[in-house]
Amino acid sequence: MTSLPISFLLTLCLLVIPSLSSDSDPLQDFCVASDFFFSGLGIPLNTSNRNGVAVAPANVLTFPGLNTLGLSMNNVEFAPGGVNPPHSHPRATEAGVVIEGSVFVGFLTTNNTLFSKVIHAGEMFVVPRGLVHFQWNVGKGKARLITSFNSQLPGSAVLPSTLFGSMPEIPNAVLTKTFRTDDATVNNLKSKFAV
Amino acid sequence: MTSLPISFLLTLCLLVIPSLSSDSDPLQDFCVASDFFFSGLGIPLNTSNRNGVAVAPANVLTFPGLNTLGLSMNNVEFAPGGVNPPHSHPRATEAGVVIEGSVFVGFLTTNNTLFSKVIHAGEMFVVPRGLVHFQWNVGKGKARLITSFNSQLPGSAVLPSTLFGSMPEIPNAVLTKTFRTDDATVNNLKSKFAV
Amino acid sequence: MTSLPISFLLTLCLLVIPSLSSDSDPLQDFCVASDFFFSGLGIPLNTSNRNGVAVAPANVLTFPGLNTLGLSMNNVEFAPGGVNPPHSHPRATEAGVVIEGSVFVGFLTTNNTLFSKVIHAGEMFVVPRGLVHFQWNVGKGKARLITSFNSQLPGSAVLPSTLFGSMPEIPNAVLTKTFRTDDATVNNLKSKFAV
Amino acid sequence: MTSLPISFLLTLCLLVIPSLSSDSDPLQDFCVASDFFFSGLGIPLNTSNRNGVAVAPANVLTFPGLNTLGLSMNNVEFAPGGVNPPHSHPRATEAGVVIEGSVFVGFLTTNNTLFSKVIHAGEMFVVPRGLVHFQWNVGKGKARLITSFNSQLPGSAVLPSTLFGSMPEIPNAVLTKTFRTDDATVNNLKSKFAV
Amino acid sequence: MTSLPISFLLTLCLLVIPSLSSDSDPLQDFCVASDFFFSGLGIPLNTSNRNGVAVAPANVLTFPGLNTLGLSMNNVEFAPGGVNPPHSHPRATEAGVVIEGSVFVGFLTTNNTLFSKVIHAGEMFVVPRGLVHFQWNVGKGKARLITSFNSQLPGSAVLPSTLFGSMPEIPNAVLTKTFRTDDATVNNLKSKFAV
Amino acid sequence: MTSLPISFLLTLCLLVIPSLSSDSDPLQDFCVASDFFFSGLGIPLNTSNRNGVAVAPANVLTFPGLNTLGLSMNNVEFAPGGVNPPHSHPRATEAGVVIEGSVFVGFLTTNNTLFSKVIHAGEMFVVPRGLVHFQWNVGKGKARLITSFNSQLPGSAVLPSTLFGSMPEIPNAVLTKTFRTDDATVNNLKSKFAV
Repeated sequence: MTSLPISFLLTLCLLVIPSLSSDSDPLQDFCVASDFFFSGLGIPLNTSNRNGVAVAPANVLTFPGLNTLGLSMNNVEFAPGGVNPPHSHPRATEAGVVIEGSVFVGFLTTNNTLFSKVIHAGEMFVVPRGLVHFQWNVGKGKARLITSFNSQLPGSAVLPSTLFGSMPEIPNAVLTKTFRTDDATVNNLKSKFAV
Repeated sequence: MTSLPISFLLTLCLLVIPSLSSDSDPLQDFCVASDFFFSGLGIPLNTSNRNGVAVAPANVLTFPGLNTLGLSMNNVEFAPGGVNPPHSHPRATEAGVVIEGSVFVGFLTTNNTLFSKVIHAGEMFVVPRGLVHFQWNVGKGKARLITSFNSQLPGSAVLPSTLFGSMPEIPNAVLTKTFRTDDATVNNLKSKFAV
Repeated sequence: MTSLPISFLLTLCLLVIPSLSSDSDPLQDFCVASDFFFSGLGIPLNTSNRNGVAVAPANVLTFPGLNTLGLSMNNVEFAPGGVNPPHSHPRATEAGVVIEGSVFVGFLTTNNTLFSKVIHAGEMFVVPRGLVHFQWNVGKGKARLITSFNSQLPGSAVLPSTLFGSMPEIPNAVLTKTFRTDDATVNNLKSKFAV
Repeated sequence: MTSLPISFLLTLCLLVIPSLSSDSDPLQDFCVASDFFFSGLGIPLNTSNRNGVAVAPANVLTFPGLNTLGLSMNNVEFAPGGVNPPHSHPRATEAGVVIEGSVFVGFLTTNNTLFSKVIHAGEMFVVPRGLVHFQWNVGKGKARLITSFNSQLPGSAVLPSTLFGSMPEIPNAVLTKTFRTDDATVNNLKSKFAV
Repeated sequence: MTSLPISFLLTLCLLVIPSLSSDSDPLQDFCVASDFFFSGLGIPLNTSNRNGVAVAPANVLTFPGLNTLGLSMNNVEFAPGGVNPPHSHPRATEAGVVIEGSVFVGFLTTNNTLFSKVIHAGEMFVVPRGLVHFQWNVGKGKARLITSFNSQLPGSAVLPSTLFGSMPEIPNAVLTKTFRTDDATVNNLKSKFAV
Repeated sequence: MTSLPISFLLTLCLLVIPSLSSDSDPLQDFCVASDFFFSGLGIPLNTSNRNGVAVAPANVLTFPGLNTLGLSMNNVEFAPGGVNPPHSHPRATEAGVVIEGSVFVGFLTTNNTLFSKVIHAGEMFVVPRGLVHFQWNVGKGKARLITSFNSQLPGSAVLPSTLFGSMPEIPNAVLTKTFRTDDATVNNLKSKFAV
């Protein structure tokens, strides 16, 4: 199957599979015969949760075959009215296609301009790398997106819980001054994210 | 302040203006207010053609909002028995999700090993950058894939037409010797791709 | 010599001219004899504003000599108690050195863990690319940081104003559900950022 | 020779030498004192084989000193009439210089245009990353090329054997439909590549 | 908080911390909870040496938290008249800000043009990647710079000692011919750098 | 649809037009139908000059077809005893093959270690990106190298002329202190490079 000695391949793999090097071009076809097929996008997903949204990620942690390949995808499903909270991906641009339903998709530029549109099955959006964005199911039924990222592990900073639910907490002095509000409001918001 | 002759500087700029920048990180949120939403994935597609497959691409040429963002996606639809011919993408890794149907997905490593599997709705595959691959609808009905690429313009070298249908033609001497066959076979194959 | 239609080539060039090249290595020493020295870091800065912080940026827009060089720097000054609001840089890792004063520096990982420390003159911090972070002057006097970024235009998503002061607004339905609060709270927060 | 403790260097090297991370800039001068000189380009090569071509590669597998350096070179020799089969390099652009003889060099764009020329000693060609290309010795005597690649391991998908000699085989249904031919022709081509 | 078994995470870290992969984007927030704060910029530095300059580096070897983050910084201090010798950084562009004093900063293009200026506190310079440059304290008192680099380990080829103090030595035949001088001069220069 | 003022957008484009894109992957097969074949490597070269060496470069300025392809090559010829002066390439790793003759090849690490070897026809060397290196023809006859670079325009800082022949000159105070010599020696060296 390959002319490389097995011992060499094993060495390669112990090193390569876990080594999170950068999202540049791969240096070989792939590490070894990891599985290049993944059934974990799990449809349908259970969207019975507070935000009415569920995400099945296919990234290097769930799908090791993506290692060094610079790409990942998600299956995102929404209950009626479900919202994928404002968040940003530190390491990737995101593009997505609506498979089912009608979704209000928005992102914010670094000068605080909102670009948004309601898009339907077969329509696509793109969110430039690192920008804050969200999706909201505005249709009558469920909605589903297939999204893609140009990183094997894009990461996600989910802003409501990052700002008000972190461990340890962000000091109130920082939040009250910059959100232009008071301790009562900040404490109330924090209380909603307390574990 | 510099000893570079003006003509040299002009040459530089003439070289630069047409040069497409690379699929690295963008240097700004985006270039200008292009539209970040795209309806051209066009479903359903017309798959009444010789190979029984149709592709709607969302790349920088069809969806200029992708410019500098390092990502593109395709909608691929198959008639029963349809085949996306063996091809490679010079500038991207490809990942894809089956939305409908059952698809035999295969790719070939640089040591001529075929990795393949029949995958179904909700299942995913990945093809490492630049490797030869194909998809074949082995289900009873139509099939549909959503694919993604980590380049804004991945390109596609479709091997049957590249090898036997190019303009000008690849000389028979090259094809007969390397495909280990004769002029009659090569001429017959070329005749099928003649415009 | 090529079958690309002229219109296709023109399209390419229209796409390319405005596209900022990426933060990879430069392809020449520099483009033309721009000035490689910059006096715009402007010290002292005026920190008499709501947050008690002022930033003088040296990026490709203020210092064109940085074009294609993949690096930028800021001078950041704080009044006593001043706070640089929670924000993220979509296109760069940030490192910084305290020149004067005592600063509480914090950043949040994508699993909502806060890493923070009070650092003093001569001490340094780093914020991995795209993560949410903030700085707070906890000393008695003014404070000053010199920060650097591995992009010629890192950009900054300043979260309080991005979330509650964007134009157009993020719909209340998105904010109330994901911040786990009510319209009154969201409207009150938005009112503080109204222009 | 270096101020790093040997133990640290050994650790580095066990990791770096086999770790095929990406072809970006190196992060250090080099791993350790691997040999930076290589005699394995082996001239003259034995070109007494079916295609009349032999390649001596200097890539990271044969010349470990190239590790992380983003470059490799080949020595390619041709018997009279020898042909380097149509192939593509998934991870590199290729450039080459004719050292001896007269070579018909061709590559195919993604819209199936053949660019080709007969070049002689001291003349050079370039093949953009990932495109299908071939070389054919059209001179009376032997021919020799020195080629270079902007990857430490460019890889090579050799199309005749990839398409008709893979293990396992590409199903006939895929090949007959897309090459627009019949099982007899496909079986005959496959038989020539059977091991 | 992650589904990875601890053993897997430990493996990750043993590999990632020392692995000097390339200066591209990180693939995760960071490796593990290395310290993201560094006090080693050490001010004031001892500049009582031959060149009257001292450098405290914050790179991946002194500040492991920078691993994979593509950025480093230095604190550079000068005695009156101190000179940072002509040198180049093989892996980074450098930018710097004068914190104290007046510094003559110069760099040389690849066509041997010197760009230079005397800059003062609050002023900035940039040196394009790989170009030869130097700094000279021309003020009455001490001087201090904060510099930044777009690599976690930029490296430095310090030309006087590289050319005349290497081990083993560069042969005189190479130096006399290319510096257009004689053995006596070369031997004299080498003698100053003999350990 | 965006709040960016037109003037800002224009500024962006003025910045962008002259910016050379980086040596990353191309975004298309190539820009336009430039010629992909180059006869300018010009052999034999005239080596009747002070250093006894001549270089014919195939880079993006002499061979525009290389634009965006991230690769260049040189033909380097030596008279007996000829020396290619100590120099570094700011933007590329170099690899080379001896075509004829016997060449002493050396490079210096950033800790001033010389790696060197005399290599002969068919042997290869590599110089990690940005390191100082030189070649010296130590054979009885002429020598020839084919070199390659992983940049379309690697640049070259030729140290003797950069240090002692720049325009304007590097101040003597910088050179005498750091080369540990006197004005007489520096002036003498500078006089040899005066135009």
